[in-house]
Amino acid sequence: MSQINIRTLAKELGISPGTVSKALKDSHEISADTKERVLALAKKLNYVPNIYASSLRKKRSKTIAVVLPEVADSFFSLAINGIESVAQKKGYHVLIYLTHENFIKEQEILNDFKNGRVDGVLISVTSETKHAQHINELQSSGVRVVMFDRVFENIQIAKVGTNDFESGLLATEHLTACGCKRIAYLSISKNLSITNQRMEGYKNALEENNLSASFSQILHCKNDEAYNYKALKKMMQSHNRPDGILASVEKLIITVYTVCRELNVRIPQDVKVVGFSNLASAGILNPSVTTIAQPAFEIGEAAALLLFKSLEKTGFNLNEKSINLPSKLVVRDSAKQ
Amino acid sequence: MSQINIRTLAKELGISPGTVSKALKDSHEISADTKERVLALAKKLNYVPNIYASSLRKKRSKTIAVVLPEVADSFFSLAINGIESVAQKKGYHVLIYLTHENFIKEQEILNDFKNGRVDGVLISVTSETKHAQHINELQSSGVRVVMFDRVFENIQIAKVGTNDFESGLLATEHLTACGCKRIAYLSISKNLSITNQRMEGYKNALEENNLSASFSQILHCKNDEAYNYKALKKMMQSHNRPDGILASVEKLIITVYTVCRELNVRIPQDVKVVGFSNLASAGILNPSVTTIAQPAFEIGEAAALLLFKSLEKTGFNLNEKSINLPSKLVVRDSAKQ
Repeated sequence: MSQINIRTLAKELGISPGTVSKALKDSHEISADTKERVLALAKKLNYVPNIYASSLRKKRSKTIAVVLPEVADSFFSLAINGIESVAQKKGYHVLIYLTHENFIKEQEILNDFKNGRVDGVLISVTSETKHAQHINELQSSGVRVVMFDRVFENIQIAKVGTNDFESGLLATEHLTACGCKRIAYLSISKNLSITNQRMEGYKNALEENNLSASFSQILHCKNDEAYNYKALKKMMQSHNRPDGILASVEKLIITVYTVCRELNVRIPQDVKVVGFSNLASAGILNPSVTTIAQPAFEIGEAAALLLFKSLEKTGFNLNEKSINLPSKLVVRDSAKQ
Repeated sequence: MSQINIRTLAKELGISPGTVSKALKDSHEISADTKERVLALAKKLNYVPNIYASSLRKKRSKTIAVVLPEVADSFFSLAINGIESVAQKKGYHVLIYLTHENFIKEQEILNDFKNGRVDGVLISVTSETKHAQHINELQSSGVRVVMFDRVFENIQIAKVGTNDFESGLLATEHLTACGCKRIAYLSISKNLSITNQRMEGYKNALEENNLSASFSQILHCKNDEAYNYKALKKMMQSHNRPDGILASVEKLIITVYTVCRELNVRIPQDVKVVGFSNLASAGILNPSVTTIAQPAFEIGEAAALLLFKSLEKTGFNLNEKSINLPSKLVVRDSAKQ
């Protein structure tokens, strides 16, 4: 007996092979009646699905995943919009997974993708993530990966980010130009390349302005608002408190403003503040806050475009790609000359 | 010949039926070597997967979906955290889908769920959504649905929300207690029950205070910042401009502040403002903004708990459930007595 396949079933039933395939997969597009006829014949003819073929064939889920620490941040919500604008044109679904800065959760999520649930992944790692083994393993299973914003510098994975070093430098130079002599830097993680790069820019600007010898204060904040609040309060109550603050992530701006208000430390008179942020409310804070505004939408868009290029083009060397889109300084009341 | 099934294959190969099942599904948990042995035997014995059984058996994806208009809103990002706190305990994945206030997109997303991609759906509908046909169809396919925040009042679908009528009433009464005589209401949609309920509360408070005859102004805003900005500017430039504004959603607060700043209309001296919001930055806006704070995390949590109860308990009548968690007024500088 020759091998029974989907075409045999389709011919016998007088319907298309596509309909048979969908009926076997219990697709909602197929009527219950047709499904029953297909299944009955499959059973009668002892139809064996070609498991080899289906497991070897390139499966496409038409879905990509975005893995993020959180969404309560204007950078990430704008980046998602950039990603979705591309995916929509390509007819792909976008699934958003939140890690809540938990490295174990990030590993579990990526591990789950190995089953072919998604074709590609755009990831911005947690502040706890120290290595890329889980990403490399996912790539080995055939899933394409692009890192964005929170990327790894020295490994071969496609990355899309911004000029963090230059932004840290620019923001700090702006604070020195405003007359600040004692500038503090608020970091969110010792692991993340982006905050470390911003910090290197900060350190460089201090050196260039001969300020580093007399004052340099780096506060390593955590994913813990109460801790950050307490640590910052202590810093702002110290004898030699800073007269300039560079906050490396958006949520630390709110901490800085809240602490200063509580201690009656006036912004910008007593301390000038610059923060990395794309907050829609930046202009209506009290006072309006000077920011490094990142091209968040464009970063998401570029990362998605890279991913789709790699899904569409064979031989495209995704891992070698690296895109850098510049941020800009937006001067408002919290730090201006 | 008796029917060859997974147990026959497992016995023959000296491995567990679970391993055979996973190997047939090409699971990454199974070694290539074992997969080959399983597939070879399946082919040799002409193994026919019991398609009837697998399509009738209750399939569990261990995944729920959250369908939302956007994430750039503190209510939704907190609600997601509430949902994830429950899902994590249950060992479920949470997928987030954004509709961007587009009804067609919402329909497409829900249609896609009929394939069994998720076990349950938590949805907050778009501002364009006028009926629940797509939700009812999804339910018919066996997927459980709970609506939260943006719910339908008069149809039998499980819903979790807050006391929108009372909140609109409370906020408007607070404005009248602050001395406002000409209070405007900013709506985001004519379709959404929540903004309509808040509006009814507003109208009720005006009537109780004998203000509705002399002044009542409802501005129907859109999902279009430029339009809202222009419409609000026109309203604030009119001869008989409001001395009190109730903004029914978070993003309209930013529009109100921006327009007032531009027109040199002082908050709270010239116009008092109350907004529905859970913004972390509410306290550091200029001036700090009086809000109706919704129990966003708790709403997400309660919606997820309902959904899981229905997934775990047979005979649980999900569609009859309705939970209402109260919001509260947080008085700050933009409107205080």
